[in-house]
Amino acid sequence: MAASSSTSTGLEVRILCRRGLLTSPTASLAPGHIQANLLILPSAYASDFRSLCARNPVPCPLLGSTALSKIGDASCIQPDSLINASDVDFDIRTDLPQYNIYESGKLIATKIDVKHEWTSDHVAFLIGCSYSFEGALAAAGLTPRHWVVGGNVPMYRTTRRLNPAGIFTSGTYVVSMRPYREEDVSEVRRITAPYKGMHGEPIAWGYQDMRELGIVDLDKPHWGDVPEIREGEIPVFWGCGVTPQDMIMQAGDKIKGIVIAHKPGCMLVLDVNEADYFKGEG
Amino acid sequence: MAASSSTSTGLEVRILCRRGLLTSPTASLAPGHIQANLLILPSAYASDFRSLCARNPVPCPLLGSTALSKIGDASCIQPDSLINASDVDFDIRTDLPQYNIYESGKLIATKIDVKHEWTSDHVAFLIGCSYSFEGALAAAGLTPRHWVVGGNVPMYRTTRRLNPAGIFTSGTYVVSMRPYREEDVSEVRRITAPYKGMHGEPIAWGYQDMRELGIVDLDKPHWGDVPEIREGEIPVFWGCGVTPQDMIMQAGDKIKGIVIAHKPGCMLVLDVNEADYFKGEG
Repeated sequence: MAASSSTSTGLEVRILCRRGLLTSPTASLAPGHIQANLLILPSAYASDFRSLCARNPVPCPLLGSTALSKIGDASCIQPDSLINASDVDFDIRTDLPQYNIYESGKLIATKIDVKHEWTSDHVAFLIGCSYSFEGALAAAGLTPRHWVVGGNVPMYRTTRRLNPAGIFTSGTYVVSMRPYREEDVSEVRRITAPYKGMHGEPIAWGYQDMRELGIVDLDKPHWGDVPEIREGEIPVFWGCGVTPQDMIMQAGDKIKGIVIAHKPGCMLVLDVNEADYFKGEG
Repeated sequence: MAASSSTSTGLEVRILCRRGLLTSPTASLAPGHIQANLLILPSAYASDFRSLCARNPVPCPLLGSTALSKIGDASCIQPDSLINASDVDFDIRTDLPQYNIYESGKLIATKIDVKHEWTSDHVAFLIGCSYSFEGALAAAGLTPRHWVVGGNVPMYRTTRRLNPAGIFTSGTYVVSMRPYREEDVSEVRRITAPYKGMHGEPIAWGYQDMRELGIVDLDKPHWGDVPEIREGEIPVFWGCGVTPQDMIMQAGDKIKGIVIAHKPGCMLVLDVNEADYFKGEG
C-alpha cells in the first residue's frame, strides 16, 4: 500500500510501516525530511564497513548506526538527532516499508519486518539517500521524472570499483539516474552539491560517461522502474545507497550470517529535516 | 643534493630546503614524521578543491591548508598542530625540496622555491602522503623496494575517475606502487589500513587490477623511478597525492592563473609524528 501525500512527518511514515500499512517506495513522502538506506550486518563486519564508508563517501555516506555499545539493540540510533526521543516505539526491524534478507550474498526473502531475522549480534547502518535532494530539484523547476510519471527512480550496477576496506574488496558503485537536458546539468549539479551526506552532486552525466560506467541499457535498471527519457535529455548519475547491499551480493559466501537491507526505494524516513541537517553541518 | 639519514626532524628537513640545500625526494627522511603533498591554487578554486578532497578521500586526503581567513599568507598552516609554532620562519614557498609550476595545465617550470610565483590570492593545500606508512612496513619486515634499491617510488596515472566536484570534473586517480609477494598482501593491507589520512590500505593489487586501472607498462611510471619487481611478486597500488596536480594538468586552460605543486616525491615534512596523529584521530 502507498501512503498519501498528506503523510508529512518521519514519525507518521514510520508508524505506517510499523503497522504494516505502508509497503511502497518512500520517494516524495515527508517532504524535506532526510531519508536513509539501511544495511544490517553481523557485528564482526562493523569496523570494516565503517572504513568502507569512510573510503567511499559518495556512494556510501554514513549517517548513523545503532549503538555500537549496545550491539543487538534495534531501538537506538546514533547520533540521536536522527530519530526523535519521543518515538519510544522506534524499531529498525519494523520501521521501513520492506526489507531484503541476504544469506551468502543471495537474496533469500523480502519481508515487511525482520523481527525474526535480527539477532543480538546485529548492527544497523544508515546511509544517506538522494531522495533528500529531490525536493530541492523540484522546487527549482527541475522535478525528477519519476515524481512526474510515478514509480521508483531507476538504479544501475556499474563497473566502477569501490575503494576496498578490510573484508570488503569486491564492490562497485550503484548509481541512481535522473534524465535532464544538457543545458540544465550545471544547475542540477549546483543544487545537489551541498547535500554532502546524501551523495552530493552527480558523479557522471551523458552517454559517454554511461558507457564508461559499464551501463549498457538504460531500459534495464537493476532496481527501480524503467525511466522515461525525453528528446534532448541525457542521463545524469548519482552515487546510490544501494551500493552496500549490492556489495554484499557480490561478496557471496565470504560474508557469514544473515545480512539485511532495505528494499531499494523503501527507505527509513528520519525526523531530521534538511534545514536542520545543514545547520548541523555548518 | 640529498639529505643524510641523520636528518631526523621535520624542522631539520625544512631548514635544509629553505636554504636550497635539499632538493631530492624526502622518502625515509625524518622517520615517523608525517609528510604531505602540496597543491597551491588561486583562491577562487579553494571551495571546489575542498569538496573534491571530501569526495575522494583515498587519493586526496586533506590534512590542512594555509589559513582561509588570511589568503595569501604563506607562513601559517591550519590545523596548527602540523607545523610547530617555534618554526617562526616557516614558509610554504621555500620549505619543500622542489616545486612544479603550472599554467593552463602545462608544467612551465620546476624550481626550488616559489617566492616569485606565489601571489596574495593563493591558498596552499596539504594532502596526506603514503611515505607516512613506509616506516611501519619496514618495521614489519616488508620494506618498500625503493628504500632498498634507492630512488623514488613509481607513480602511475590511471583511468579510474575521481568523483567530480564543481569545476574539477576531469581527474583520474594517480597511484603509487610497491611490489610484494601475493601471500604478504593481507599483512600489507592490515599495516597500512590505519593510515587513513595518508591513503590507507591499497586500492588494488595484482596484474588484473593493474589492467583495470589502465596501467599498461610498470616500467613506464609517469613519475618516480622504474621499479624492480622480483619473481613471484605482484604490484600493489595505493592512492597517491600526486592526483591533484595531475588533475590540474588534465583540466588544462579551464583553470586560470598559476598553480603550484610539489615535485612528486619531494614532500613537505611536518612536525607531527605518526603516534601523535593517531592519538589525535582517536
